[in-house]
Amino acid sequence: MENKRGIPIPTIKRFPSYLRLLNVFKEEGREMASATMLAEELNLKPIQVRKDISFTGIEGKPKVGFEVDKLINAIISVLGWDNATDAIIIGAGHLGSALARYEGFGSYGLRIVAAFDTAEEKWGTNVGDVPIHPFDHLHRWYIEENHVNIAVLTVPADEAQHVADQLVALGIMAIWNFAPKDIKVPSRVVLQRTDLATSFAVLSAKVKRVMESREFNEEDDSW
Amino acid sequence: MENKRGIPIPTIKRFPSYLRLLNVFKEEGREMASATMLAEELNLKPIQVRKDISFTGIEGKPKVGFEVDKLINAIISVLGWDNATDAIIIGAGHLGSALARYEGFGSYGLRIVAAFDTAEEKWGTNVGDVPIHPFDHLHRWYIEENHVNIAVLTVPADEAQHVADQLVALGIMAIWNFAPKDIKVPSRVVLQRTDLATSFAVLSAKVKRVMESREFNEEDDSW
Repeated sequence: MENKRGIPIPTIKRFPSYLRLLNVFKEEGREMASATMLAEELNLKPIQVRKDISFTGIEGKPKVGFEVDKLINAIISVLGWDNATDAIIIGAGHLGSALARYEGFGSYGLRIVAAFDTAEEKWGTNVGDVPIHPFDHLHRWYIEENHVNIAVLTVPADEAQHVADQLVALGIMAIWNFAPKDIKVPSRVVLQRTDLATSFAVLSAKVKRVMESREFNEEDDSW
Repeated sequence: MENKRGIPIPTIKRFPSYLRLLNVFKEEGREMASATMLAEELNLKPIQVRKDISFTGIEGKPKVGFEVDKLINAIISVLGWDNATDAIIIGAGHLGSALARYEGFGSYGLRIVAAFDTAEEKWGTNVGDVPIHPFDHLHRWYIEENHVNIAVLTVPADEAQHVADQLVALGIMAIWNFAPKDIKVPSRVVLQRTDLATSFAVLSAKVKRVMESREFNEEDDSW
């Protein structure tokens, strides 16, 4: 669960929440934030927050806590969000188009520069500010000249592996896979999956349990 | 990390991947699947797969493995995907509309029955097959009469908590939060967050590391 720099993945996953909260504090004019404050707002334990923050290299002062500005910058730097990363979207369907228009990416340093699709009627049109090009026009030189590091994969499940293979052959550094399909890439390529099914599985297993306990209670009442 | 029924969350998160793969096996006409086969396809360890499957109550046979059909049904049942769950979308913006049109939900037993939005120009229109209603028309009786269990929250970050409070007051059982904001709900309400920032944080931290190691290697070459 640790990456090579020694920051555990769960810590990295909590950083965006810290960042959002710290930015609220900053807007409110607060200069210092304590681990206890952060923990309370985010339903975490203070010891967890202190440990997470220690990975940024920022040290708190007893009683007063951490400097909000410094902590914001340190987290942004650890996440690599201080350098805008250019990305392309592969598959300009509903999800691809929604992601192309998603304004939240800007604050993560992610810039969607183009979308590629095989559907001819989409070529030359835009989603938001993002132009859609023919997938066949995606060449190695395009990726290199435009410093595109990340491909956001929003193609149908049955095309995901084939398209990923092509992206790997074109020299892409990272693939963010939204297709409902587990794909394989060489270990030199960074792969991140955002799977709605995985997230819904957890939600739905919890809902099932709540419903069963309600049914159980209703049965109870009729005794 | 364990829910009350004793199935660990990481196991629940892996179930959708098993399910997708088992359905491929089924289409290919395979009747049996071994833990080793599943593990190899999904880059897991066989012992992990065996442990996960043990939570479904399905037992494998030595040398031959598990019955594909039985295992599919058992996983679907554990996840609660055998009963269609009706859901509403709150906020019919880009992401909300993309989710309303997302065809993958059907296979999870999730049915989006309506979307609600405060923007008057959207009222009475449809996204895909899903009608958009005024948010003010969302009443407790609507949720009860239509057996709506889940609200998919796709409103802007600064409205998320306020809207969630209203949904809780209306008696919603579960909230699936896509807004880039950590919200608080009473413990009786099931809360699941799908946060693009969290997923991107992991990807981007990995990309940063790859880029730094490449820069390091380039510097190396110039010695």
